[in-house]
Order: sequence, then C-alpha cells, then structure tokens
Amino acid sequence: MVRILVTNDDGIYSPGLRMLYEYVKDLGDVYVVAPETPKSASGLGITLHKPLRVSRVDLCGFEVYATSGTPSDTIYLAALEITGNVDLVLSGINVGDNTSMQVILSSGTLGAAFQAALLGIPAIAYSVDVESSDELENNEELVPILRAVVRESTMFILRNGMPRGVDVISINFPRAVSKDVKVKLVRASKLKFSEKVDVRIDPRGNKYYWLFGSLIEPEPDSDTYVVHKENNIALTPLTLDMNALGPHTYTDLKVLNGLIDDLNNAIKNSLNGK
Amino acid sequence: MVRILVTNDDGIYSPGLRMLYEYVKDLGDVYVVAPETPKSASGLGITLHKPLRVSRVDLCGFEVYATSGTPSDTIYLAALEITGNVDLVLSGINVGDNTSMQVILSSGTLGAAFQAALLGIPAIAYSVDVESSDELENNEELVPILRAVVRESTMFILRNGMPRGVDVISINFPRAVSKDVKVKLVRASKLKFSEKVDVRIDPRGNKYYWLFGSLIEPEPDSDTYVVHKENNIALTPLTLDMNALGPHTYTDLKVLNGLIDDLNNAIKNSLNGK
Repeated sequence: MVRILVTNDDGIYSPGLRMLYEYVKDLGDVYVVAPETPKSASGLGITLHKPLRVSRVDLCGFEVYATSGTPSDTIYLAALEITGNVDLVLSGINVGDNTSMQVILSSGTLGAAFQAALLGIPAIAYSVDVESSDELENNEELVPILRAVVRESTMFILRNGMPRGVDVISINFPRAVSKDVKVKLVRASKLKFSEKVDVRIDPRGNKYYWLFGSLIEPEPDSDTYVVHKENNIALTPLTLDMNALGPHTYTDLKVLNGLIDDLNNAIKNSLNGK
Repeated sequence: MVRILVTNDDGIYSPGLRMLYEYVKDLGDVYVVAPETPKSASGLGITLHKPLRVSRVDLCGFEVYATSGTPSDTIYLAALEITGNVDLVLSGINVGDNTSMQVILSSGTLGAAFQAALLGIPAIAYSVDVESSDELENNEELVPILRAVVRESTMFILRNGMPRGVDVISINFPRAVSKDVKVKLVRASKLKFSEKVDVRIDPRGNKYYWLFGSLIEPEPDSDTYVVHKENNIALTPLTLDMNALGPHTYTDLKVLNGLIDDLNNAIKNSLNGK
C-alpha cells in the first residue's frame, strides 16, 4: 500500500486540509501531519534552535498530527519520525493562489513540497485563488473540479513517478471556473505583486510597519495570467535547481503533456457526472 | 553616490555584519539594516500577519537599523522605507557556509539576497564554513582574503551590474585557507546534509524533537566540495527561475569568468601586501 502524506501551511484547522484528505483517502495509507497554527509565507524556514512538539488531534472524526513547527519542519517530522517512509506528499489545499516565483519562494505550501523533494519524495502543491476558507469550501462549481484534478494528478504521479527534470508540481485553481475550464501547462511568472510598506503610528506615538502587496498586471502565458485572467487551472512544473550554471536536467514534456490530457479528461468526466 | 545595503540573518550583533560593513564602507553610501535577533534558516519567510518595528541602534560607534522581522522583511523595510532606492545588497558575512540547494533554499542570508533580486536589486551573499563568530573574526589567514574578495566582488558588480542570467551571487569561504587558495566558479550541489530527527523525553515524560543534519559526502565539482574538501572559495551564480519549463535565460559565462579572474588577482595582491 502506498503511503501518502497530506500537509499544508494554513494549519490543521484549515478546511482545505480536510478536503485534500477526503479526496485521496482511498488511494493509499493517508497520513495528515500539519502545523498546529497557520504558517503562511514561512517559505522553507526550518526550526533549528528550539525543539519541536507533535500532538495527535481528533477534529470531529478527522485524525491529524499537529506540529509546533513550520511546513518544512513538518515534512521532516512526518517523513522521518511519525509515518516513516512516504511515497507522495500532497500540500494544500491552500487558501490563496501560489503563482509567480515571488510567491512560490515564500510560500509554506510550496516550502513543504520542496522539502519533500529534497528528501527524494514526489510532491504536488494545490492552491486556489480565494481569500477565505468559506470561499473554498462553498464554491459549488469549483469543488467537483478540484476533486477531479486532485485525484487524477495523485493517481498519475503514483503510477508514473515525477516526470524527469521535475521536482515539484504546483497546481493553481481560479476563484471562478467556467464550464469549459482547462488545465494548462505553464511557467511561473516572476512577480505577482508590487511590494509595499504601510507605515502607521501606534497609540504611544511610535511607528510600526505592515508589509503588503498590490497585484500587478500578469505576464501573458504565465501561471498568474492563466489563473487570474483566463480563470483556467495552471499546472507548473518546478525544479529545486536554482543554478544559473548548467548542465540542466532535461524536462520530460511528453509525460507532462500526458498528465495535462488526463486532468482535462478527468474534469470533463466530472462535469458529465461520470 | 551608489547606495549599498548591508544585511544578514544572524542579526545586528553578529561580528560578520560589522566586518562586511567595514570592508565596503568607502565604496558608496552604506546602510546597515538587519534583524534584531538571529533568524537563521528562515528562508524567504515574510511576516504578513503582524506589524513590524524598526529601531536605530548604536553598537559602539557602529550605527545600524534593527528590524523585528525576518531577513526578507528586512529587505522590504530597508529598500522601500528606510533607505529608499538601493543599488546593491550585500548579505552576510554568515557564520556557516551556505552551500547546496538544500541549505540555500532555507538560508536567511540567501533569502535576503533573493528578495533583493525580486525587487530588481543585484545581491551578493557571503558565507564562511565556521561554527562560531570567534572562528570568523579571529581567523588571521582568512580575514585578508575575505576582505579582498568582498571588496573586489562588490566593485565588480557596481561596475558591471549582475551578469546576464544571474540573479544572486553566493560566495562561500572555507574554514582554513591555504596560501594558494582560489575562487572557483561552481554549481550548488543538491544536498549537504542527511536530515535527522532526535527524539527526547522532557522532565514531564513527554516527547520533544530536535531537527539536525549530518554531513554527507559532497558531489565533486560542487560548491560543497570546493569549500569542504578543497579549502577553496566557491562562487555560485543563482537564478530565481525554478521553472522546469523553458525558455531559460542565457547565462553570461564570459562576465562570470572575468569576475573569477578579478577575484583571484585580488587575493594574490592581498597576499603580497598590495
């Protein structure tokens, strides 16, 4: 029986975690291990200078392990201690899309997936361009498509392994899907936001600062464009290799295109009630 | 006058920060903005859910800005609020080498450099394979070489900009340098550590966990190999582009090799007391 680890960066109480578990629970031995509190934007941060805790939590029948660490810590605790060997890591379903390198590099959802890849474990990250868990759970048009894409992509990678040259697959869903929504194979854009600092004055007269980003016009043919402008689903294959010097591993486009075809068929079938 | 931002992830009290400032203080308007406490292994984590603070600190004549945030937060606060436009970010000098993609992806030193690159600012990260600040400051053979390489690389990038296809330059120094130490242009290895979890029992009888890594045999011709096995200096050009799908930007090897030559000449001159 294959062993699947479901994790996220929004923490154990995020409905996206349970949705992901429910979608794949019959596809293997599925373990859920996630941070006990939200750890958005923690990137690949690891906790080296303090010890970590793990607790077993029963969320109305949904049994999870909660860790005191980051998403990266969680991968190590899960794969090396809690569950033993893991065949596949699924991270998400994240509230908010993780499009653009700017967001990918700071994302805990992707951070968990990259750490899995460093351990040699295939990993898929799922994210949706919504602002709240409510918007994710109660999106009647999106949910069947989300389910179909999660299941089909999980089965594909369990069957074929990761395509050559790919360490992590990131799948981003739009907020509103049309009837003819498609999965597209696209690169991550460089930027999604223009970063800003908002300066405020506290009641004691001292300055404090909020970081925030305002959306910029997305690059055509990028993940951000596909999700924000086309309302389609972006599938972005990523590598851990940030070397500007070659040689670079050849990326198997044939297998990736096969995956895209399978996902689009799965969406069609789900819409036809099959 | 060019504006240089000096930062790190070890925090304002790390001697490596002051060394870096001292080495370049005559090369432009140099600002020092760094986390108020150590933020090692925080990767590209950003603080979005709480506000940040900045304070001006005088460390016996060394004037710095201390932020309550991560290295990534610090880049945004510095470049967007404290100093205004920045021409070059220098991150380090880090206690501990940042070789291998495994370490690069979780490193706050590199995290700051990548965030700068996302803002379009050239960035260089400096790290040394030492275990403590003492070992860094009091290394009589290393210090003149460190100084020569920091100054020459800073002047080179101020003069030429970043080589095409390169977003961040990471330079890693060995603990012990020989008389014929060289700077080598190399790729980052994939892994440096085998990750482990150490399980302990607290005085109340409950389990807690430490994450740690044990060194693995480094890949030949990699940054880790050059620093750990050859006691040479590794210069590794990195890109923000983790797309497994092309097209990829062409990397200008001619300029990179010119930089390597300049650095090796600077080392020779420093050893000859020029």
